[in-house]
Amino acid sequence: MILDRIQKPNDVKDLSYQECNELSQEIRDFLIDTLSRKGGHLASNLGTVELTIALHRVLDFPKDKLIFDVGHQSYTHKILTGRKDEFETLREYGGLSGFPKRNESDCDAFGTGHATTSLSAGLGMVKARDILGEEYKVVSVIGDGSLTGGMAYEAINNAGELKTNFTIVLNDNNMSISENVGGMSKQLSKLRTSPKYTDLKENVQTSLERIPIYGDKIVAHIRRTKNGIKQLVIPGMSFEEMGIMYLGPVNGHNIKEVEEVLRDAFQFKGAVLVHVITEKGKGFEPAEKHPARFHGAEPFDKETGLPKNRAIVSYSDIFSTVMRKLGDRDPKLCAVTAAMMDGTGLRRFHNMFPDRFFDVGIAEEHAVTFAAGLAASGLHPVVAIYSSFLQRAYDQILHDVCLQDLPVTFAIDRAGIVGHDGPTHNGVFDISYLSEIPNMVVCAPKNKWELSDMLKFAISYGHPIAIRYPKGEAYDGLKDHRDKIVLGKCEPIKSDEYSASDKDSKILLFALGSMVKTAISVRNRLFAAGIPVSITNARFVKTLDTEYLLKAIKKYSLIVTMEENVRTGGFGEQVEDFLFENGYTGKIINISLPDAFIPQGDIAFLKKKYGLNSQSIYEKIVRALDD
Amino acid sequence: MILDRIQKPNDVKDLSYQECNELSQEIRDFLIDTLSRKGGHLASNLGTVELTIALHRVLDFPKDKLIFDVGHQSYTHKILTGRKDEFETLREYGGLSGFPKRNESDCDAFGTGHATTSLSAGLGMVKARDILGEEYKVVSVIGDGSLTGGMAYEAINNAGELKTNFTIVLNDNNMSISENVGGMSKQLSKLRTSPKYTDLKENVQTSLERIPIYGDKIVAHIRRTKNGIKQLVIPGMSFEEMGIMYLGPVNGHNIKEVEEVLRDAFQFKGAVLVHVITEKGKGFEPAEKHPARFHGAEPFDKETGLPKNRAIVSYSDIFSTVMRKLGDRDPKLCAVTAAMMDGTGLRRFHNMFPDRFFDVGIAEEHAVTFAAGLAASGLHPVVAIYSSFLQRAYDQILHDVCLQDLPVTFAIDRAGIVGHDGPTHNGVFDISYLSEIPNMVVCAPKNKWELSDMLKFAISYGHPIAIRYPKGEAYDGLKDHRDKIVLGKCEPIKSDEYSASDKDSKILLFALGSMVKTAISVRNRLFAAGIPVSITNARFVKTLDTEYLLKAIKKYSLIVTMEENVRTGGFGEQVEDFLFENGYTGKIINISLPDAFIPQGDIAFLKKKYGLNSQSIYEKIVRALDD
Repeated sequence: MILDRIQKPNDVKDLSYQECNELSQEIRDFLIDTLSRKGGHLASNLGTVELTIALHRVLDFPKDKLIFDVGHQSYTHKILTGRKDEFETLREYGGLSGFPKRNESDCDAFGTGHATTSLSAGLGMVKARDILGEEYKVVSVIGDGSLTGGMAYEAINNAGELKTNFTIVLNDNNMSISENVGGMSKQLSKLRTSPKYTDLKENVQTSLERIPIYGDKIVAHIRRTKNGIKQLVIPGMSFEEMGIMYLGPVNGHNIKEVEEVLRDAFQFKGAVLVHVITEKGKGFEPAEKHPARFHGAEPFDKETGLPKNRAIVSYSDIFSTVMRKLGDRDPKLCAVTAAMMDGTGLRRFHNMFPDRFFDVGIAEEHAVTFAAGLAASGLHPVVAIYSSFLQRAYDQILHDVCLQDLPVTFAIDRAGIVGHDGPTHNGVFDISYLSEIPNMVVCAPKNKWELSDMLKFAISYGHPIAIRYPKGEAYDGLKDHRDKIVLGKCEPIKSDEYSASDKDSKILLFALGSMVKTAISVRNRLFAAGIPVSITNARFVKTLDTEYLLKAIKKYSLIVTMEENVRTGGFGEQVEDFLFENGYTGKIINISLPDAFIPQGDIAFLKKKYGLNSQSIYEKIVRALDD
Repeated sequence: MILDRIQKPNDVKDLSYQECNELSQEIRDFLIDTLSRKGGHLASNLGTVELTIALHRVLDFPKDKLIFDVGHQSYTHKILTGRKDEFETLREYGGLSGFPKRNESDCDAFGTGHATTSLSAGLGMVKARDILGEEYKVVSVIGDGSLTGGMAYEAINNAGELKTNFTIVLNDNNMSISENVGGMSKQLSKLRTSPKYTDLKENVQTSLERIPIYGDKIVAHIRRTKNGIKQLVIPGMSFEEMGIMYLGPVNGHNIKEVEEVLRDAFQFKGAVLVHVITEKGKGFEPAEKHPARFHGAEPFDKETGLPKNRAIVSYSDIFSTVMRKLGDRDPKLCAVTAAMMDGTGLRRFHNMFPDRFFDVGIAEEHAVTFAAGLAASGLHPVVAIYSSFLQRAYDQILHDVCLQDLPVTFAIDRAGIVGHDGPTHNGVFDISYLSEIPNMVVCAPKNKWELSDMLKFAISYGHPIAIRYPKGEAYDGLKDHRDKIVLGKCEPIKSDEYSASDKDSKILLFALGSMVKTAISVRNRLFAAGIPVSITNARFVKTLDTEYLLKAIKKYSLIVTMEENVRTGGFGEQVEDFLFENGYTGKIINISLPDAFIPQGDIAFLKKKYGLNSQSIYEKIVRALDD
């Protein structure tokens, strides 16, 4: 195996092109085998094997800085920098991250996870390098999907003034998580199908004489003819007019070609964009055919490509069904997402109501203000975005939706610990960042029926409202508890009988969303220990049910708030603030996540580790009663 | 006066061009006179008088939707829609807003304040119009400065697919608040100086025959020749390649020309960009010469243009001085801002250290991740952005800076109530949105010396840290209280002697930042009433001084937290959470802003209205003691 000879950075430089091609195949086999067992981002990694090998042959690690946008395509980079043996721990707690991480390797120049950060970070590194008088290369690899994010444009606008090298590799596989949207996508499609792509060497000589700055060596790749790249306009921008040199397109699966164009790019004193065409999922037929399915895949059968784990009914599935039904009833209902059509469950809505479905690309900011525009003109938009990605639109939620009190519903998927994707993807801040915004209402369903009820309530509510629900299987317990949703009203679930002797230990579990299920389990433990306890489903973080809480102040001596969110600014602190102000003198236990980034790992394991499981909560309560 | 005849929407349509020109002059005189007394955004409004008149002659209000990006240039629009007489209340509490507001007039289609939202909102309205089968025009007016924001690009990327009209007016005055940056700016400069601009009618006929879609009438404005606009590439993007028609450029001070091009634009079934060239400050020499000075001006002398109010020493001035000094000492110190060079006080740093100063344009997201890149490669970046604008970069602060624990210092100006600019500009959320992010440290200085000390501390701290300080005069009291800044340590300021009889009423004022000054005043009132009280300058919201608070729990029976931020997720709630958990059984008063958007008005008036003044706090304390 050639792969066994690649033990540390730069080992790949000693290989012949023939060996490089063999290595590519070995890496593909390794990735397919490992990910079929462990899960992970298969399609994007299969698409970038040769590109990464080429990058490693022309860069010097760890001196040079390579930044992968989003970063889920960095597996080959990890393999080539001495981390192959750690792949058995991929995405596990304490194991190898599925994304680049500065504290995992000095070959990971910048941690990523969210899209469209690599150009800004790369430009910062270039400026730092120049100011400090150091010499190294900075290369940002960005996919065409990430380029729909506005931040890329902000960075490109700034990169035009550069006088030293900054290499941007556009990894053009013509898709983001689902598919690209808008003018940019059309441009790239046009380019991909142009004859120039299929025969790179052709038709370039006409303008060579007009470019005296560059040596013969690189000139073969430059498309700077009058009617050339300026009119093709790679992703909708004329890079060259902004002072950015364009090289390409080259076949991203031809290591030699990519290597050559990169070497040429490094000679340019300024920002240079290298356009590389790759195929997502390359080398694994199921992933080539269904790259979206293999974006962030669960373990799968290597032969068929079919998932190994049993299918579950997730909250996204419930959302999908309810949206489809509501779309039938309400012709003003529309759905907005940001490259998360499949993940959020909106594909069926899209199929049934294509005119009322908007996938704006990886552009959360635009998605939210666009929805504000829809709402301002009479529609009922539902914005479905994962909790951690919605962070991008904090200002738009505040300034465009809430300040104007517009009826936009936010369906916030992946709210809570997401597990193996780790800290960049955890949705554990939304309760805090939404609650602090005036006019916003924040709620969370305890089970699948309540998600349905809350969604119906939200659409008729007429003001900004956010519903947050976690990744994974939708809870199907407590089916009989289906009180009508009323703004700011909680739902008492169980109320044990207290005897007179319990006077000083009357306990309320005041649980939000996913924690209601946990509360049932905590109650069962307490009940078994002879400790009576009441459970109330909070439903609304904001507005809190103050009427209920005022009664609770008198009735209970220990109130346990339970949420899957950071403590600061969360549900518990808001409840505490109200209790404090209204003279509660009993005890309180705030069950929430600590002020720390929650690492990757199994969700159940992490909940236990951070004290969100029923055993830990039970123990805390017992300790509090003993005090 | 022609202006007197303009009483309601659409009145301006009855005027001749001669009368329109006279009206322009009258509006200019009115604006200069009013703003010289009231203050306001003079330069941008003087630049858009004719453009707005032309828009009003071709649009039908309130049926048609006109969206002003940022919105500080909407004064003429307000005058023309029956709000002239309200200008005496401009920017006052309860008066006319300095920005468009949906609840102020049905002619204000969408509220703005922050930059780069108008295209997304306009596109939303266009889609809503089409879905609902309604017929009206949607026009978004966006300045060239706002176009540096990535959201504009996200929207344009989506607008390319439109099959019905959406008119974008690019108001190109070649400057944002300070000046434009990057490739885009160069492009526009090139265009402005091109011979085509000076003689619009020239040199167009060559390509007319090649555009069969459009009638003769509009063809005269279309620059769609092979070597025409595609290579000029208005702000760095090839709009046409993205499916957006380009018309212009036209002289924005020629009403007839603008009117004609707009009528032409409305005939296009798709997104169309009308490029209008205007001069900021036009018609008022001081503003033409120094448009940045008249961006958001205080009252000024009409003859000289000089400000009427005495100069104050603001926190921005202190920041300016300290940054300059620190820049001398630390060659790794650099400064990043987003079109706020003057407002934040960084002009002097820029002049002294141009290589270490970065104004990235209106692009807060890029600014923060760019700073993360600088920090990751060894520099000490200070990001100076106003509190309300930094909201745009919430995800970048979390994901790029804090998750990687990079040493970026945030200098957050305009933190607190900003006064006359109103709710879009109030910096009253930052304590909440920053505190909930792990690894972030948040502090606020009590006076001008402490800002200096905190800044020095921050730069040497080596991790993410934010210093927030308000608009207006820097407090110069408490000069002698200058304890060394230590992470997470507060500073006791005054400790009155308690007699034994005070046992049950030992009061601590635990005040943050700007509220320390108020606390002194509260203490003087209490002292005069014979009530002893202690004052402690909290300094750090995060990390709280837990050692001190544990002592305070034992010592005090009434703790008053004081901050200039919303209550939810703020300083007070965080203190309460700690006190609650650690068994504090005394009273607490949380002085903070309510869960509401704070309207425009005089800062002192608003502080009083919302209970942040010393009299209100004094009264609350006295009431609590009586309970």
